[in-house]
Amino acid sequence: MEKNLLKEIFEEIDKRQDEMVEHRRHIHKNAELSFEEKETAEYLADYYKGKDVEVTTNMGGYGLRIVIDTKKPGKTIALRADFDALPIKEETGLPFASKNEGVMHACGHDAHTAYLMLLADILLEKKDKLRGKMVIIHQHAEEAPPGGAKQMIDAGVLNGVDNVFGIHVMSAMPFGTVQYHKGNTQTGRAKFSVKFQGVGGHGSMPHLSNDAIVAASYFVTAVQTIVSRRLSPFENGVVTIGSFAGEGTFNIIKDSVTVIGDVRAMSDHTKEVIETEIKRIAKGIGDTFNTGVEINYTNDYPVLYNDPEMTDLVVEAIKEAEIPEVKEISDGGEQPPSEDFSYYAKERPSCFFYVGAHKEDAPYPHHHPKFDIREDAMIICAKTMAAVAVKYLTED
Amino acid sequence: MEKNLLKEIFEEIDKRQDEMVEHRRHIHKNAELSFEEKETAEYLADYYKGKDVEVTTNMGGYGLRIVIDTKKPGKTIALRADFDALPIKEETGLPFASKNEGVMHACGHDAHTAYLMLLADILLEKKDKLRGKMVIIHQHAEEAPPGGAKQMIDAGVLNGVDNVFGIHVMSAMPFGTVQYHKGNTQTGRAKFSVKFQGVGGHGSMPHLSNDAIVAASYFVTAVQTIVSRRLSPFENGVVTIGSFAGEGTFNIIKDSVTVIGDVRAMSDHTKEVIETEIKRIAKGIGDTFNTGVEINYTNDYPVLYNDPEMTDLVVEAIKEAEIPEVKEISDGGEQPPSEDFSYYAKERPSCFFYVGAHKEDAPYPHHHPKFDIREDAMIICAKTMAAVAVKYLTED
Amino acid sequence: MEKNLLKEIFEEIDKRQDEMVEHRRHIHKNAELSFEEKETAEYLADYYKGKDVEVTTNMGGYGLRIVIDTKKPGKTIALRADFDALPIKEETGLPFASKNEGVMHACGHDAHTAYLMLLADILLEKKDKLRGKMVIIHQHAEEAPPGGAKQMIDAGVLNGVDNVFGIHVMSAMPFGTVQYHKGNTQTGRAKFSVKFQGVGGHGSMPHLSNDAIVAASYFVTAVQTIVSRRLSPFENGVVTIGSFAGEGTFNIIKDSVTVIGDVRAMSDHTKEVIETEIKRIAKGIGDTFNTGVEINYTNDYPVLYNDPEMTDLVVEAIKEAEIPEVKEISDGGEQPPSEDFSYYAKERPSCFFYVGAHKEDAPYPHHHPKFDIREDAMIICAKTMAAVAVKYLTED
Amino acid sequence: MEKNLLKEIFEEIDKRQDEMVEHRRHIHKNAELSFEEKETAEYLADYYKGKDVEVTTNMGGYGLRIVIDTKKPGKTIALRADFDALPIKEETGLPFASKNEGVMHACGHDAHTAYLMLLADILLEKKDKLRGKMVIIHQHAEEAPPGGAKQMIDAGVLNGVDNVFGIHVMSAMPFGTVQYHKGNTQTGRAKFSVKFQGVGGHGSMPHLSNDAIVAASYFVTAVQTIVSRRLSPFENGVVTIGSFAGEGTFNIIKDSVTVIGDVRAMSDHTKEVIETEIKRIAKGIGDTFNTGVEINYTNDYPVLYNDPEMTDLVVEAIKEAEIPEVKEISDGGEQPPSEDFSYYAKERPSCFFYVGAHKEDAPYPHHHPKFDIREDAMIICAKTMAAVAVKYLTED
Repeated sequence: MEKNLLKEIFEEIDKRQDEMVEHRRHIHKNAELSFEEKETAEYLADYYKGKDVEVTTNMGGYGLRIVIDTKKPGKTIALRADFDALPIKEETGLPFASKNEGVMHACGHDAHTAYLMLLADILLEKKDKLRGKMVIIHQHAEEAPPGGAKQMIDAGVLNGVDNVFGIHVMSAMPFGTVQYHKGNTQTGRAKFSVKFQGVGGHGSMPHLSNDAIVAASYFVTAVQTIVSRRLSPFENGVVTIGSFAGEGTFNIIKDSVTVIGDVRAMSDHTKEVIETEIKRIAKGIGDTFNTGVEINYTNDYPVLYNDPEMTDLVVEAIKEAEIPEVKEISDGGEQPPSEDFSYYAKERPSCFFYVGAHKEDAPYPHHHPKFDIREDAMIICAKTMAAVAVKYLTED
Repeated sequence: MEKNLLKEIFEEIDKRQDEMVEHRRHIHKNAELSFEEKETAEYLADYYKGKDVEVTTNMGGYGLRIVIDTKKPGKTIALRADFDALPIKEETGLPFASKNEGVMHACGHDAHTAYLMLLADILLEKKDKLRGKMVIIHQHAEEAPPGGAKQMIDAGVLNGVDNVFGIHVMSAMPFGTVQYHKGNTQTGRAKFSVKFQGVGGHGSMPHLSNDAIVAASYFVTAVQTIVSRRLSPFENGVVTIGSFAGEGTFNIIKDSVTVIGDVRAMSDHTKEVIETEIKRIAKGIGDTFNTGVEINYTNDYPVLYNDPEMTDLVVEAIKEAEIPEVKEISDGGEQPPSEDFSYYAKERPSCFFYVGAHKEDAPYPHHHPKFDIREDAMIICAKTMAAVAVKYLTED
Repeated sequence: MEKNLLKEIFEEIDKRQDEMVEHRRHIHKNAELSFEEKETAEYLADYYKGKDVEVTTNMGGYGLRIVIDTKKPGKTIALRADFDALPIKEETGLPFASKNEGVMHACGHDAHTAYLMLLADILLEKKDKLRGKMVIIHQHAEEAPPGGAKQMIDAGVLNGVDNVFGIHVMSAMPFGTVQYHKGNTQTGRAKFSVKFQGVGGHGSMPHLSNDAIVAASYFVTAVQTIVSRRLSPFENGVVTIGSFAGEGTFNIIKDSVTVIGDVRAMSDHTKEVIETEIKRIAKGIGDTFNTGVEINYTNDYPVLYNDPEMTDLVVEAIKEAEIPEVKEISDGGEQPPSEDFSYYAKERPSCFFYVGAHKEDAPYPHHHPKFDIREDAMIICAKTMAAVAVKYLTED
Repeated sequence: MEKNLLKEIFEEIDKRQDEMVEHRRHIHKNAELSFEEKETAEYLADYYKGKDVEVTTNMGGYGLRIVIDTKKPGKTIALRADFDALPIKEETGLPFASKNEGVMHACGHDAHTAYLMLLADILLEKKDKLRGKMVIIHQHAEEAPPGGAKQMIDAGVLNGVDNVFGIHVMSAMPFGTVQYHKGNTQTGRAKFSVKFQGVGGHGSMPHLSNDAIVAASYFVTAVQTIVSRRLSPFENGVVTIGSFAGEGTFNIIKDSVTVIGDVRAMSDHTKEVIETEIKRIAKGIGDTFNTGVEINYTNDYPVLYNDPEMTDLVVEAIKEAEIPEVKEISDGGEQPPSEDFSYYAKERPSCFFYVGAHKEDAPYPHHHPKFDIREDAMIICAKTMAAVAVKYLTED
């Protein structure tokens, strides 16, 4: 391994830490919702302006693709960071809290983007000591289906790319910890809505109406049997009805109700079983209560599969790099949430790994209005990904 | 009204009270289940042997039809009493308690039969003072579908009959009270079974089975909506699941479950709505949980309709008769249980009424193992029915 | 009966029919929601200005109390009409359709008020031929609890009043028909809300949350058993969950849900059983699913009890009056909706009756956006109520 | 490894194969239910009679403990096989099918016992070439709680024992395959019953009763939420209601219902969550429907934990032994069923592993009336366990 090169890069990262923090805070303050990240994308485009890189903007939306070409033969590695924020009203009280009411970087994408901006620039400086090409993927819209990853892939972001790597900072994982998992690692996801169409009417005359709240409630109870009875106990699947839009007037029988739900599964088989069952149950309950039923079922993010070989490369690279801030690297097992990085991993052997960023005075989960991270975790992001890139672009 | 004739009859009833009690106790002690009343039928046949009556035995089962012909022109009245017992283990401790283990006269049919035996004999004696004909219907199997009434009607018991009258003793109604109601008076009834056929298997592997207990349980909960949401609040309907045959082994997923239910309704419309809904829900739940569904639905006893004119006749007859034991005659409103007297009432304008028989030291409802009645209520039965018969057979 | 007086009054009603229609259309066009009927109240106050009556405005809200004093000894009759409208977007296309978007007289209160305005004026003219006093109650806010009736009673509207009479026009009842019912006639009502407080969280990690939609759905299913299993089939009761406020994000487990429901019952006993059961079930379901439970339960409109004697008076008055437009007067039985006239009927022996107003080209139920009535039904309202008032104020 | 010794043993096993088959068929034909295995225990006691071993019979029931003492210092290994059968009516049509109606070896315990009988005898012959002691555990009652393992441990079967090994033949696993898993391997188990005590009564008068079938049905539906909402999707847990004893008469409201259920979980934490929730839900549903609730909850077989070191020993011994019939040895992952071998594994570092015994013309799961295995799989059992014992008793 190119120990000296890595040492130079690490020194550069340490030296330019403030710059990275500044990027993160700017992005945090100017948080933008998925698919609406116009200004963040411009901020990124400005950053790369004038540098010796190929820049494609508005790729499949507000995505950016930056190519650093060493001009030497070799493989092409892609490094990906996402930059969209969430529809959450920030309550951190930070000086750089979001100025956009109701929009917040509550998942750490600001940190992902900031470390990768810095790392890209440093790798660019050092490109003569590397081979092949680097593709920096600044991805929009990770938080909302259909997901920026899919859009950027459709727009060609992976053309010529051999493998993709990505990082997520984790607010509950101790600082100094890096985790990985081989194989199926994050759940695949589907989203569905079911509209039960009954007949409205006066609350005192139920026989002249057909109560959609009743039908939809029995649906919610019946849906529980999918996980409890139709999945193997060894399978990992979740069905959540997150929305039951039945607001109405106390004495008017509700004519229609739409429920919306979320599906998670750690295998394609489980996803299929759940889809079949939700459709069956929705239809069956509609027949039971004589309501109309309209089902919309959309499979979105696939199961995230970490290629074993690429994962080994990540683990070895990080171990060999002897990064002073990294105290432990371990198998973190499967993770419940979904990630649209899975689309890259379906197209190319890839690896997505996790960097601990726990902040003692902000012990809040991701998507919490008070979510925050230790900013120096970005140093670990930059150094671990640097180790991966250098190993990848210098060894055979 | 033939006051003198009635007075003679009443005196006769008073005089022969012990005989009536003896009949009742004999029948009570020798209680026989519906459709198995062989000995009771023989006891009755013996009683009429040698009397100046036409006797048909084994009519549509163990039923008896006794004709008393005045040989004078006139209408034909039928008086009906039932004589079957129930599958209940008697706990009264009476000296004449049932000698047949697990079979008990817990509804008062013994009393109905005893009073009518005596009354028939007295009317026979007095027949020269009457016109037309009397048909005494000693009916088997009132407690169990399809019911002796239907069988006897099919066998011709109502041939030539113009109107039918019947009495039920009531353990919760005060002694001295007679009650009636015009129009729909006792519920019609249906019985159904639904078999949910799933797939058995080991409790630890639910996905390889299909749990019939789960499907049947959701069915029970869904069925509740028929009464709560599909009937007008002004309609009277009940659906009871009385049996859920799901006994099994704790760790084996049950492959099939049969539930059996009972339906009551105070109108034909309501009966139809309930039938439609039970079938819909059973099928819908089967589809929801992917089980097979076998539905058996049998409409049995119809709604009991008391003809207004015949009911007026009953009320007037009893009022005019000035029976000393009768303190009150009033409209008792609709009654929840079903009665196969309703079959007679569907065929001929008829009236079924109620005689209070509350016994202070046996305050138990009908069908209770300690059920009992005041035996002198039989005197009221005999006298009120005598009043009806005399009025009917002497006036125009 | 004062046939001549009545004849004069009927002629006057016929002559001034256009005036009555004009009032109705003005009120219809200027429809105002319950408790917000400021302009309608002013319109009424203007109408009585300068007349020889005692006027109290803003009584318990926007209510008006008009006293016509014959100065002769006698009893005091109150005649009541309501004047509020509903939160419904009118779709009748009538030239005098509501100019207030989303507010509509879709229940006929405009007609009630118009006929009573005219009748009050005519009775005022004829007061020398009458005895005692007349109190005209123009009541606000019948449609929404706590109801204007209660507020006006609390403010003293019934002071000195002996009996109260009221009319409702009925869009489904044929023109020419008048209906009444003695005893419990319209349902009593209660309203409740139950808030299930769970714990929100990410849809993929249900064990870290507590799903309020699930708890509330099981509550809805369990509530069905109140009517199906806890009420006598001879009782009349309804429980409707009209609102299930569970709208949320598909992949966020809902932290809390409030359901709102409506209760109807035709007796106080039934109201009490339902209240006990709703509270028990809400608490039981909260315990089952470990959610917090906040119950608000408000009994509002009582069961409407028509005094038998006052109802006889109404029936006789109408029969004796031989009103040419009235083709039939009959017992219409119990009615499902609730009415805050019941508060008057709780305080004084009273009678509320129904006037058919079916319009062939507008066959819509009350509270429908296309609801309309035959305007000449107001003539029947005026004449029947005139008959009641004249009989009441001229006979002993 | 003592390759020569092992070779001798394998030759002996091959030579005496018929004897082993004979034992298996005798036991199969004379199948006895758990806790009633009197004759099987006598058959085993007879077998060891006269041999140079210490025999303890009736240990904690019908269990047998056989000690083979090499008289040389060393550790003590225990080898365990179970010998009880199941309450299943055999449908195999085998010539040696169970002669005891309704009792069948449908899980392979006959094979376990037969191979261990032979192996014990061969190890006894070869004991001079071994060190330490061997304890042969012939265990009764594996199939039914509380389980023979617990009883034998309580009676001292593990006194002096260092480690325990056991095998299960698997009808679905290919012949030639051996599988193992480290750590939590088979589920822990609990059993519960809940009795809902309502009030019986006539089906037509639900308000006078309290329907236990309704309460128990809602309980079944609510229980589904334990697995669907209260367990982490990464946890393995199952709750099955295997019995719903609600058989009754169609028109009688059921007064009480007892449901019985089975719980499986792959960790102690999950077992505890499920226990808490079942108790909460049972109580909550009882409160909801105002029924009495009696809960009996018994934790029985623990999670089976295979000690990593002992599992490594098994794997290495089998690999080194180069058993010709063994084509593959692999990690078979977690297994859904429970096993009372887990009690030994709680007391001593132990390993339980699996031998493929799939029979092509009997592709039936365990506990099926047509269950059967390839009898030569017993050779693999004997040889693999021989390899384990020899390695254990000859190496340090």
